Amino acid sequence: MKISNLTVKDIRFPTSLEAHGSDAMHSDPDYSCAYVVLRCDEGTQGYGLTFTIGRGTEIVVQAVKSLAHLVIGKDTTEIFSNFAAFWRSLTSESQLRWVGPEKGVLHLATAAIVNALWDMWARMEGKPVWKLLADMDPETLVSTIDFRYITDVVTKEEALQFLREMQDGKAEREAKLISDGYPAYTTQVGWSGYPMEKVKSLCEKYIASGFDSFKIKVGQTLDEDIRRCRMVRNLIGWDNKLMVDANQVWDVEEAIERMKALAEFKPLWIEEPTSPDDVLGHLAISKALKPLGIGVATGEMCCNRVLFKQFLQAGAMQYCQIDSCRIGGVNEVLAVYFMAKKFRVPVCPHAGGVGLSEMVQHLQMFDYVCLSGTMEGRVIESVDQQQEHFEHPAIVKKSRYMAPINPGYSTYLKQKTVEEHEYPCGRVWKELIQSGRWKSPADNVRV
Amino acid sequence: MKISNLTVKDIRFPTSLEAHGSDAMHSDPDYSCAYVVLRCDEGTQGYGLTFTIGRGTEIVVQAVKSLAHLVIGKDTTEIFSNFAAFWRSLTSESQLRWVGPEKGVLHLATAAIVNALWDMWARMEGKPVWKLLADMDPETLVSTIDFRYITDVVTKEEALQFLREMQDGKAEREAKLISDGYPAYTTQVGWSGYPMEKVKSLCEKYIASGFDSFKIKVGQTLDEDIRRCRMVRNLIGWDNKLMVDANQVWDVEEAIERMKALAEFKPLWIEEPTSPDDVLGHLAISKALKPLGIGVATGEMCCNRVLFKQFLQAGAMQYCQIDSCRIGGVNEVLAVYFMAKKFRVPVCPHAGGVGLSEMVQHLQMFDYVCLSGTMEGRVIESVDQQQEHFEHPAIVKKSRYMAPINPGYSTYLKQKTVEEHEYPCGRVWKELIQSGRWKSPADNVRV
Repeated sequence: MKISNLTVKDIRFPTSLEAHGSDAMHSDPDYSCAYVVLRCDEGTQGYGLTFTIGRGTEIVVQAVKSLAHLVIGKDTTEIFSNFAAFWRSLTSESQLRWVGPEKGVLHLATAAIVNALWDMWARMEGKPVWKLLADMDPETLVSTIDFRYITDVVTKEEALQFLREMQDGKAEREAKLISDGYPAYTTQVGWSGYPMEKVKSLCEKYIASGFDSFKIKVGQTLDEDIRRCRMVRNLIGWDNKLMVDANQVWDVEEAIERMKALAEFKPLWIEEPTSPDDVLGHLAISKALKPLGIGVATGEMCCNRVLFKQFLQAGAMQYCQIDSCRIGGVNEVLAVYFMAKKFRVPVCPHAGGVGLSEMVQHLQMFDYVCLSGTMEGRVIESVDQQQEHFEHPAIVKKSRYMAPINPGYSTYLKQKTVEEHEYPCGRVWKELIQSGRWKSPADNVRV
Repeated sequence: MKISNLTVKDIRFPTSLEAHGSDAMHSDPDYSCAYVVLRCDEGTQGYGLTFTIGRGTEIVVQAVKSLAHLVIGKDTTEIFSNFAAFWRSLTSESQLRWVGPEKGVLHLATAAIVNALWDMWARMEGKPVWKLLADMDPETLVSTIDFRYITDVVTKEEALQFLREMQDGKAEREAKLISDGYPAYTTQVGWSGYPMEKVKSLCEKYIASGFDSFKIKVGQTLDEDIRRCRMVRNLIGWDNKLMVDANQVWDVEEAIERMKALAEFKPLWIEEPTSPDDVLGHLAISKALKPLGIGVATGEMCCNRVLFKQFLQAGAMQYCQIDSCRIGGVNEVLAVYFMAKKFRVPVCPHAGGVGLSEMVQHLQMFDYVCLSGTMEGRVIESVDQQQEHFEHPAIVKKSRYMAPINPGYSTYLKQKTVEEHEYPCGRVWKELIQSGRWKSPADNVRV
């Protein structure tokens, strides 16, 4: 089947109006995505997206258009029978790679396309992506991964070996997954811009619904950080887990000092303490915080498998937070799972964003069934936002993600959402802009 | 003065037709740039660009447009009196940073704008950029740099100290620079796509014009690499310097093996042996090649100061190849120079591309006059391409860059070039496309 058509849309939600998703670095996000639809001649479709936070989505949309010629006209059988080679044709296009390579806008755009291809493949097979992966023989699964630049840490043969060793018990783990789901933690209680009363009521709500792990934002003033940590710790008690997230706001030494001051609240991890590119900086922070029992978590802005490789080699991340869009889609995320397996670092996916919960649940469930074989010390982030816009949103019951049952990657947006939230001309945006309730800082600028 | 207007154009040169600039990863570059013009109310202008290689330029152009609202309407006095803060307003815009941060398309676009601002500042002062920098008091110079994420290696106070220590002898060094120029090496002899006869005749030409350092591309088959290295070494003799450049084509262990096989030709450095993001990989290669007398050079795709910091901290680069566009313009490149100074690593700028020679000469000359105080072991890359399109191109005489004398950053393109080379509607492109001599792989694709 030939891919005959690609469309890409700039879909945004005005979350900045209520400070949903706000943190120390991103004070006013409008949760958004570049949404890709692929169509084959005879009607099969694939839906994929990359998460963004408002301005900048238009650049990713342009990048998807610039990559489109590499996808349109291609045969799906050829793509899926040697997916690693196709993936490299996207990430190593001889001219386009200059404006990456394999990072930033171009890699976000690659992810949207690659995610749509996986959605299409799973639909063709009539399975959710986690099950498509779980049912693949090891050779096929490994054939989707481009091992370029990581062979010093994991080779194709080693990856095959990992999968083969875990064939035993797959059926039992799959049954357990379907009956019990996968543990989640919530980030919904502690966005920076939420007033204290809101944080309090949300903590109470999520405790009541069964959560035992809670993440809040830090990186404001030290007093403010202490005040929030103290309140949340008091609310959730000492048996539940508290994680904190600085969203890259500190320098290396500052991160160490600030976390020493928050150690009394016993956070499990500090997430993104400094620049996401700073492997050696995270290593210094990890070493300094280890005696305090605080781990370092990062990954949502880790730009490709080569960065993940170094974080894992160096021992600079104790929790590996893969993201389904930041790097080049499922194929590259799988490479990261293999490296995490090798270094015995638990993967706890990032999912605070449009469609991220929907996607990462598949990856983490594959990991449980086929690769790590355990949920021990692992949790998937959960955020209750924009899920009403998906045809088959992630389902979290009593703090556990339920295994998806519908074919695909769970990224099919409702048609009404696509129409109403397209920026800037969908109904929702038109009304907000006309009423003056929402203003773009780019207004009145002509280039 | 207020910046009232910003324009950005997609300017391309059809260099792929003759394999100029071709290497192991970029087989068919069309040397290009995103060209930014800033205008103030009363007519002062600033010209800046970021180098690209064809497809993808349109994405950078979109990113410049997305950043424009942060520049238009701003007062130049306010920008230049606290340039570090303004720079951070570009690189940390609360929504846009998500699609970076500080890397790839967004950072290339930032560089084009920031370069235009430096050009404007230098024009306002009536000086070339190198002289503007050399005449600045240390406090003003250091006030242009955002030290976020690098304070664990160099602080503002330390940078000030470096400059103050070198105040002595500045006048003598400036006089020497003006009389003798700055040493260059040539890359023009050995692009991958050039046939052997062309490589031979170019070697002879550049030897005759006084060059003593020659760089060629490797990373094709081992036989081909050996054949080229042997021929060029025979042509230039053993007293001249040979450098080789793999443009990221190898994995870590492969790079070590391949360079062992080329060691007999005594290359001074291997440039970009593997992924530009792989600090630990370059460290392993550095250690393996040190006994063979081969250094590791990288930097043209090093995505920001945080990566440079780690390469320098780890001892993973023996030659630091800053680029004037890959990271966020002059301000961030200065930060890298301070870190290189701290770790005593020589800076040898990357300049194979449109406008790169024009810009990096200013930075390297500032370094000589004010910071390192030496040209020892340092060379600026030189490539004779597209220089006829600049009003005031870099001038290399007897293998030495002559200090620019015209106000600005040497990035003002001739008006005719801008008109004729705008892609795809300038005369040059219209004719090439209509005649069928040049075809875009993106033709016939509608998104």
